[in-house]
Amino acid sequence: MLTNDELARWDRESFFHPSTHLGQFARGEAPQRIITGGEGCHITDRDGNRLLDGFAGLYCVNVGYGRPEIAQAIADQAHQLAYYHAYAGHGSEAAITLAQMVMDRAPQGMARVYFGLSGSDANETNIKLVWYYNNILGRPKKKKIISRWRGYHGSGLMTGSLTGLQLFHAKFDLPLEQVIHTEAPYYFRRPDAAMSESDFVAHCVAQLEALIAEHGADTIAAFIGEPVLGTGGIVPPPAGYWPAIQEVLDRHDILLIADEVVTGFGRLGTMFGSDHYGMRPDLITCAKGLTSAYAPLSASIVGTRVWDVLTRGTDENGVMGHGWTYSAHPIGAAAGVANLKLIDSLGLVENAGTVGAYLNDRMRSAVGDHAHVGEVRGEGMLCAVELVADRDTRRFFDASEGKGAKVVAAMLKRGVIARAMPQGDILGFAPPLCLTREEADRIVDVTAEALAEVLG
Amino acid sequence: MLTNDELARWDRESFFHPSTHLGQFARGEAPQRIITGGEGCHITDRDGNRLLDGFAGLYCVNVGYGRPEIAQAIADQAHQLAYYHAYAGHGSEAAITLAQMVMDRAPQGMARVYFGLSGSDANETNIKLVWYYNNILGRPKKKKIISRWRGYHGSGLMTGSLTGLQLFHAKFDLPLEQVIHTEAPYYFRRPDAAMSESDFVAHCVAQLEALIAEHGADTIAAFIGEPVLGTGGIVPPPAGYWPAIQEVLDRHDILLIADEVVTGFGRLGTMFGSDHYGMRPDLITCAKGLTSAYAPLSASIVGTRVWDVLTRGTDENGVMGHGWTYSAHPIGAAAGVANLKLIDSLGLVENAGTVGAYLNDRMRSAVGDHAHVGEVRGEGMLCAVELVADRDTRRFFDASEGKGAKVVAAMLKRGVIARAMPQGDILGFAPPLCLTREEADRIVDVTAEALAEVLG
Ligand SMILES: Cc1ncc(COP(=O)(O)O)c(C=O)c1O
Ligand SMILES: Cc1ncc(COP(=O)(O)O)c(C=O)c1O
Repeated sequence: MLTNDELARWDRESFFHPSTHLGQFARGEAPQRIITGGEGCHITDRDGNRLLDGFAGLYCVNVGYGRPEIAQAIADQAHQLAYYHAYAGHGSEAAITLAQMVMDRAPQGMARVYFGLSGSDANETNIKLVWYYNNILGRPKKKKIISRWRGYHGSGLMTGSLTGLQLFHAKFDLPLEQVIHTEAPYYFRRPDAAMSESDFVAHCVAQLEALIAEHGADTIAAFIGEPVLGTGGIVPPPAGYWPAIQEVLDRHDILLIADEVVTGFGRLGTMFGSDHYGMRPDLITCAKGLTSAYAPLSASIVGTRVWDVLTRGTDENGVMGHGWTYSAHPIGAAAGVANLKLIDSLGLVENAGTVGAYLNDRMRSAVGDHAHVGEVRGEGMLCAVELVADRDTRRFFDASEGKGAKVVAAMLKRGVIARAMPQGDILGFAPPLCLTREEADRIVDVTAEALAEVLG
Repeated sequence: MLTNDELARWDRESFFHPSTHLGQFARGEAPQRIITGGEGCHITDRDGNRLLDGFAGLYCVNVGYGRPEIAQAIADQAHQLAYYHAYAGHGSEAAITLAQMVMDRAPQGMARVYFGLSGSDANETNIKLVWYYNNILGRPKKKKIISRWRGYHGSGLMTGSLTGLQLFHAKFDLPLEQVIHTEAPYYFRRPDAAMSESDFVAHCVAQLEALIAEHGADTIAAFIGEPVLGTGGIVPPPAGYWPAIQEVLDRHDILLIADEVVTGFGRLGTMFGSDHYGMRPDLITCAKGLTSAYAPLSASIVGTRVWDVLTRGTDENGVMGHGWTYSAHPIGAAAGVANLKLIDSLGLVENAGTVGAYLNDRMRSAVGDHAHVGEVRGEGMLCAVELVADRDTRRFFDASEGKGAKVVAAMLKRGVIARAMPQGDILGFAPPLCLTREEADRIVDVTAEALAEVLG
């Protein structure tokens, strides 16, 4: 580890960081933090700070940091066979084993799993498969994709289009015209405060029906959604939302893509969010929890209905022209196998349910009555605290005040990482699934202190 | 290693392979090969076959298989810190060090490096940056991208559009409308056999000028090209091509994206193909050679002209909404650092030049006069043998005869891997850069034997 200034200088001069203010970072006006290690729910940086990571990296280090079992699986694979491709029927023991383990855990009705690298590329794969499917079925017009405002599905051109957040559209000419958006199932931000939860579900359904009618069901291929809205605000759906939406999709022969990048492999206290909410997806997108981020790997799980058409497609047209050089990379696959074993042996799905509920309960009682807290919400090991200028009128702070970011900064000073979600003043929590009650207490206490410091 | 049939069955039943005939593979009609290890230029499969890999995986295992230095760097990183994100100014020592090493090796005029996972996502990043750039410059209409027929730039929706090969367009509704294609610089397939190489360059320039005139230079943002066409046939450009194209782009204020996924880090016998051919790119795409595929990692190297506008963009608009969870993944970065060191210490760039020239010379003398060989061509550690039905008239075989695939199969029987390129009957060779002369001899001898077996 270099501890002189050379590393810091290289960082400012050469490294283009994702999701960063490039000008401020280059000029040294925005902070720099070089992470050197981690263990369980904590990370350490090269200045010797030890931080409790209440967001598990980017809600991905689900088993926690520093697990020797996964590190060793990666090391063994690297020494044995770091890489061979998976094109044209090639594979590695790790990739095949992981495919089988994913299928064993997947919701009913799934047929095959395709491995990529990122949540974005898995969503991209899924959109390509949906288009291919409708071409094979002789429905060339049925191609539009419905996504929700505040959904997050990646930051590529197609996946950034699916994403329904301003930050990812502005200046990038997105969304592309093949993507249309419908109402976010965000009860706290319902248009009319008088609506009950079931009124609001009916409203979401009506909005979806109107959008389908406007475009014509024969132009709409699929609907994509996260079981729980993630980056858009960490928002569990109102009760009954998914069954009601599923009914509309079934009626119009629209495929459902469940984006389980955050929820897959345990975060909600169940293996998949689809099972948790009674969704019946045709395609499932996974990444993060699949390897707990120890190595890049994503998965597109393809349901039988789609798979049968894909095989017919290759029977009619030959090899399918879709693949990444690093599809099913052995290092990622080895990490995935070790990670899924560890999730089982440590009982992390259950822990996500129980300690997650504890975190949410404690957060609600600690800050739920604060004058500037509009809502505390969550599900499993996900929790959000939404800030408001005024509780009674649900009036929000002006974005330029950056209240959420200020609270998060005040927490960081106290050694706890939370995330200021990008649209609204929303504190996001998504700790590793191995969080203990003591660590949950600490997150809650520090949140309360920081709220008091910034907002009184 | 499971040696019973369970693994084979899981593979058929659960694993969706990239670029595969799905129906045949599922039914057991298409071959399956499970790779278990490798060393230098050879891989071994679980049936005990040892194969000389004349394509370095997918032209990516540039340092060869089984390098303990890289495996150990991956292992150390996995144990120390497998993952933390790089958003908002965060980073790891490995990622920052690699950024600096890439900049030290990059062509002149480069400012920063963004790390992704795949060649496809790096190209996607580059297109997003180009659009952002023109939005900041107040040129919202200047957005189309010119690519070449037979270019290969990935298989996402945008990157598959940039790709100019039928296999990647058909049934996927590609290319998207923002992408337009111009003539492939493929001298052997020139429209008129009487054209000299310089006539053909003039023809390519005229085609490009006509396309620009048709659409209007004010609608065209960038031109993307591989220094040497890769998957489209392994075709070095005709002499003078790149300077002539560069002049047109400069005149119309069109950015140049050099896709160096195959050529970056030594394959042509020079560190970058841009330097090799006198290209002056504004953005460079890298993947494969950056880590020799030991772990997934890609790079978008951004030139000063674009970078200055990007920083102005964030000064005007705040944080840039672009990032992958696994951008600059520490495992990939550690592999990259070890890989670039190894390329230097083993002198692999030089070896690619000398042994690559030897391979090309020997191939030309061994099969160049065969009645069904139209051309032997190559550059550095790239070589192609193009098959024809008739040499004099440049008549090609009917695609349905699959002559290229048959020759490649006959080589595989003899223990040597070559690739049948997807469009045309073209045998492709892109061995690891550490190839020895003896291994080059073996590739050539087996090619000659297989040609004799299949085509007489
Ligand atoms: C629900 C969801 N889908 C997709 C993605 C994109 O994944 P990646 O960043 O790996 O491309 C994310 C990332 O946060 C996500 O939360
Ligand atoms: C020139 C070029 N660009 C981009 C890509 C796409 O890279 P990946 O398969 O890693 O997405 C490839 C892959 O072969 C390539 O050869």
